[in-house]
Amino acid sequence: MGAIRGPVRKIDLNCDMGESFGVYRIGADEEIMPLITSANIACGFHGGDPQVMRRTVRLAREHGVAVGAHPGYRDLVGFWRRPVRCSPDEVYADVLYQIGALAAFCRAEGVALRHVKPHGALYNTAAADAAIAGAVARAVADFDRSLMLYAPPGSALEQAGLAAGLRVIREGFADRGYAADGTLLPRTHPGAVLHEPERAAAQARGMVCSGTVTADTGEEVAVPAETLCVHGDHPSVIQVLRRIRSELEAAGVSVGAPGAD
Amino acid sequence: MGAIRGPVRKIDLNCDMGESFGVYRIGADEEIMPLITSANIACGFHGGDPQVMRRTVRLAREHGVAVGAHPGYRDLVGFWRRPVRCSPDEVYADVLYQIGALAAFCRAEGVALRHVKPHGALYNTAAADAAIAGAVARAVADFDRSLMLYAPPGSALEQAGLAAGLRVIREGFADRGYAADGTLLPRTHPGAVLHEPERAAAQARGMVCSGTVTADTGEEVAVPAETLCVHGDHPSVIQVLRRIRSELEAAGVSVGAPGAD
Amino acid sequence: MGAIRGPVRKIDLNCDMGESFGVYRIGADEEIMPLITSANIACGFHGGDPQVMRRTVRLAREHGVAVGAHPGYRDLVGFWRRPVRCSPDEVYADVLYQIGALAAFCRAEGVALRHVKPHGALYNTAAADAAIAGAVARAVADFDRSLMLYAPPGSALEQAGLAAGLRVIREGFADRGYAADGTLLPRTHPGAVLHEPERAAAQARGMVCSGTVTADTGEEVAVPAETLCVHGDHPSVIQVLRRIRSELEAAGVSVGAPGAD
Amino acid sequence: MGAIRGPVRKIDLNCDMGESFGVYRIGADEEIMPLITSANIACGFHGGDPQVMRRTVRLAREHGVAVGAHPGYRDLVGFWRRPVRCSPDEVYADVLYQIGALAAFCRAEGVALRHVKPHGALYNTAAADAAIAGAVARAVADFDRSLMLYAPPGSALEQAGLAAGLRVIREGFADRGYAADGTLLPRTHPGAVLHEPERAAAQARGMVCSGTVTADTGEEVAVPAETLCVHGDHPSVIQVLRRIRSELEAAGVSVGAPGAD
Repeated sequence: MGAIRGPVRKIDLNCDMGESFGVYRIGADEEIMPLITSANIACGFHGGDPQVMRRTVRLAREHGVAVGAHPGYRDLVGFWRRPVRCSPDEVYADVLYQIGALAAFCRAEGVALRHVKPHGALYNTAAADAAIAGAVARAVADFDRSLMLYAPPGSALEQAGLAAGLRVIREGFADRGYAADGTLLPRTHPGAVLHEPERAAAQARGMVCSGTVTADTGEEVAVPAETLCVHGDHPSVIQVLRRIRSELEAAGVSVGAPGAD
Repeated sequence: MGAIRGPVRKIDLNCDMGESFGVYRIGADEEIMPLITSANIACGFHGGDPQVMRRTVRLAREHGVAVGAHPGYRDLVGFWRRPVRCSPDEVYADVLYQIGALAAFCRAEGVALRHVKPHGALYNTAAADAAIAGAVARAVADFDRSLMLYAPPGSALEQAGLAAGLRVIREGFADRGYAADGTLLPRTHPGAVLHEPERAAAQARGMVCSGTVTADTGEEVAVPAETLCVHGDHPSVIQVLRRIRSELEAAGVSVGAPGAD
Repeated sequence: MGAIRGPVRKIDLNCDMGESFGVYRIGADEEIMPLITSANIACGFHGGDPQVMRRTVRLAREHGVAVGAHPGYRDLVGFWRRPVRCSPDEVYADVLYQIGALAAFCRAEGVALRHVKPHGALYNTAAADAAIAGAVARAVADFDRSLMLYAPPGSALEQAGLAAGLRVIREGFADRGYAADGTLLPRTHPGAVLHEPERAAAQARGMVCSGTVTADTGEEVAVPAETLCVHGDHPSVIQVLRRIRSELEAAGVSVGAPGAD
Repeated sequence: MGAIRGPVRKIDLNCDMGESFGVYRIGADEEIMPLITSANIACGFHGGDPQVMRRTVRLAREHGVAVGAHPGYRDLVGFWRRPVRCSPDEVYADVLYQIGALAAFCRAEGVALRHVKPHGALYNTAAADAAIAGAVARAVADFDRSLMLYAPPGSALEQAGLAAGLRVIREGFADRGYAADGTLLPRTHPGAVLHEPERAAAQARGMVCSGTVTADTGEEVAVPAETLCVHGDHPSVIQVLRRIRSELEAAGVSVGAPGAD
């Protein structure tokens, strides 16, 4: 899984974007985009539609935000909650399809596609299941070996990405509580989501400056992160992002997309 | 609309491929592929799914068949019959999405994407409606200006393709009856579909060697074609394709994908 | 098309409800429901999903609001804007399917299904096209001849409903501008939507008390209405509904679902 | 789970029907229908569309075949293979929706809806998972407590059906191999599918006449069945059905839908 790197002085802030569909609006993309450095753009399976994808790629370009593909299960009504028991071959083909679809909008808009991050239940499954992780990583590498793969540190997805020759960007969650084993608390658990800007910002600072987070049981656990995810569906997301940015700035950490240096 | 070119000594044979979906099988792709020179591969909206797309791109590669994207309306249950009154912006985004998705499988399999041909109701709408034609052509050109666009001679789609700077390949239908104005007979019309291999082969030979077809009313009408479409859903398609190939061979016409010379 | 009846002293207020889908929320159903007397509940094709349908039927029951099925084209991404050129047989089957699905939730919740109103593009098509109108009316009658059909006065849908032996409830739009021929102004037209509560309330009062509306060109045109539709997607819908109710109350008009007397 | 009943002298033969979708055809419904006594008709989620449903209800009526609803996961591309990790509330609503949709076609065609049998992955999940089984059974009972529920003997689904006050019809599989614990062999296992008409007929006779099957390991295991399922997607299904019927007739067993006596 690769050696755990020490604290970084530069960090990426990523957020899921472009999850609206048809007349349905979700997320405050216009307000969030100026505050992040990487956008994970939905590709039409769990959210997003072709017009939303086009609009979101353009919005990212306007704000100089790095664009990533955010493929999910083909389950619009389930959005992110429900794993579908797909074979690795199905996952490979579904992910490749979605990356290609988003890449077309990037191409038409003159924007580079930079990374891939699986969405929701697919992310969680790929983090734990080596066969699914391998399918995701192969789809990314078969499309473009220079794409970066966002993955939780120590996960099956990180290993699969490295094995496929991809640059893996280890991801921490600024606004989610962690268990003592370094995994996220399930959303049903109290403390699973950090709504308060101060708490999220403190956790972000800890991950960036010391490579650790405080678990819900009090231990410090290593979560080496090169990118921090903030969830766009909190009502307080704008405050959370602003607080994280000012906290990191105060700590002398620069904010930027990976590979842009 | 460009000057009508004279008879050609080389012709492309194209067929819609990869329209199966999940457990549903349609078409005899394995048997047809060896007999054609260009495959229009469905992209998941009117037919096709990611696994079918992958399989079909591979099948085309095995047989040295040129690969094209075959985008349609997002209407799986309607397949090809039903136009959806989309705005040009919707069509643009839907077509770009589908081209990108298929292009990803081409890239992963080391196959060049060569052309785009809209499917069914979208083809018919784009042939007649300049705004929709323009949306299709822009989507193709914005993805890759070197892609060829298949279009009926004299159509709004041909004009839009030329205006977008694309190479337009004029298409005739070997197995469909024509009206005196050079348009296809509606499918409800007797004589709309030429099931008999001899008739289809004779029509193919006429289009290739003299640039004309005999309309249902007896007139000779100009249908200058660089590619001939044969529908894969006839029970007699294999016989039709074999007869066309032997007829053309006898006439000294070579069969090959455009741009491959 | 039936004789135009005079002014009524009782009126129904209907609104489209239950158009959320998965994680996507649309409309302020909880706030609107207490202010209306009939709910047109989406059936999963243009909006709504099974869980939303269940929730919305329950919400209607809590507020004593009459429940109707609101079938649409199978086009989630297009929602209401795009007609799909379906055959009457397709429309018949699609409408029957959707009525049955909603009726199941009514049955499980002990709520009567009272009416059917086609949604958006299907409503518009059925208003103008006798074959589609006939298909809609037959689907309703084949399911349950005691269901009421909401239709624009003088429309093909009204005629088809009457021919199928249904009770047709003539519908006016409180918050939409009318042309001199009694049809709605297209949404692209200035004055197409009456956002101001006073204007909508005045128009509602006119339709109820004199059976007429003032067209955008100034003429009084007959729009005999037994039910008034208010669109739930205006930001001002709550104010519009309150103002309509107080205006009608002041005029001595009672508000209630048809057939509940 | 209820006492195991002895051998029966009457048996139902059921088959999944109406799984075509749009232009996609699956199964030989016209040929199978005359040979079965109960049809499980797909409801549009894993297969089937409204026009196919209508056609299939009519076909069942013509042949005097009892009609059942065959709800599945909302996963057309996955058809039957893939469980979607739904909550019980989602399953309840999805099943109720699908039953209602099919019931509408029954009503329009003057046909009684008699039973419900979950499809594929939903059947398997409901057989093993008490919460999902309870959701299915409640949806059936909330729609109509007189509907019969088809379920494997000894399963969580049987228990949930009985707890919900439903008549449960225990189902055996004529054309599938069994393990020593009375469960079906996984399809990947050799001997999982009995393609030979003699073997399927012998197994059918054993289940009906002695209430047992021979497991792949040689033991006789109790599989008390009141209905036998035959899969319509075998190429040999017609031969299998004919052989089963003649074998059962020779054994003095009558063939008919449950509850029709």
